Amino acid sequence: MSATSSNSFPAPGSKAELEEGTVLSPRFGADGLITCVTTDFATGEILMVAHMNAESLARTIETGEAWYWSRSRGELWHKGATSGQIQTVKEMRVDCDQDALLLKVQVAGDGGCCHTGRRSCFYRKVETSGSEPRLVID
Amino acid sequence: MSATSSNSFPAPGSKAELEEGTVLSPRFGADGLITCVTTDFATGEILMVAHMNAESLARTIETGEAWYWSRSRGELWHKGATSGQIQTVKEMRVDCDQDALLLKVQVAGDGGCCHTGRRSCFYRKVETSGSEPRLVID
Repeated sequence: MSATSSNSFPAPGSKAELEEGTVLSPRFGADGLITCVTTDFATGEILMVAHMNAESLARTIETGEAWYWSRSRGELWHKGATSGQIQTVKEMRVDCDQDALLLKVQVAGDGGCCHTGRRSCFYRKVETSGSEPRLVID
Repeated sequence: MSATSSNSFPAPGSKAELEEGTVLSPRFGADGLITCVTTDFATGEILMVAHMNAESLARTIETGEAWYWSRSRGELWHKGATSGQIQTVKEMRVDCDQDALLLKVQVAGDGGCCHTGRRSCFYRKVETSGSEPRLVID
């Protein structure tokens, strides 16, 4: 399945419209995807970074639950459909040039997000004090 | 200038090494870039989403200041070099499959980040209550 199947959003307008306007005209990349950062609404913790195509964004808006595009599986991905970790969207934001989205969500089920079992996907710090960067789980 | 010029990081290993290992082996995309989310170290506010190629990541680690790859200009981008809004990296994190980075930074100059003059690039909320999504500056 291709990520670029359909796009019902208005085409991006001028720079001024993109940056200061009231119309959501997401700038999907050549691969049909836009980057989405997802945080915990209550704590502000960054849970994950994923991607959406136009259809997943439309479904997210329509249902109030996060839908992404799984690049590895090449399919629409209703987050939590199998794990129970449904993400209810409490707030959605877009950046200046409309090529990135921010979701603030409330997570159902066990409250987790990462497929490794952790709450957040960013469970490792990059230590840069030595000669080589080193990852530390904290 | 191409984003895929050089890459001195180790090639990604097995799934277990990627997810649980101590080696930073970032998974740059076909375009040579990895997504980077940048937040304010003190407040946790999400400031911007940008991209890095291998060289910008290496320079970020080496200098302790954020370097990105400007997709619009097709060049290395030392954030703040002209605006004074240098980002000093207080913490760097990587996600489970090492295809996204998180920088927690302290911003110099006037403390801003967005080229529109706002502190954060995510200055608009997407209101989804009506028939069409609508952007609201708040």
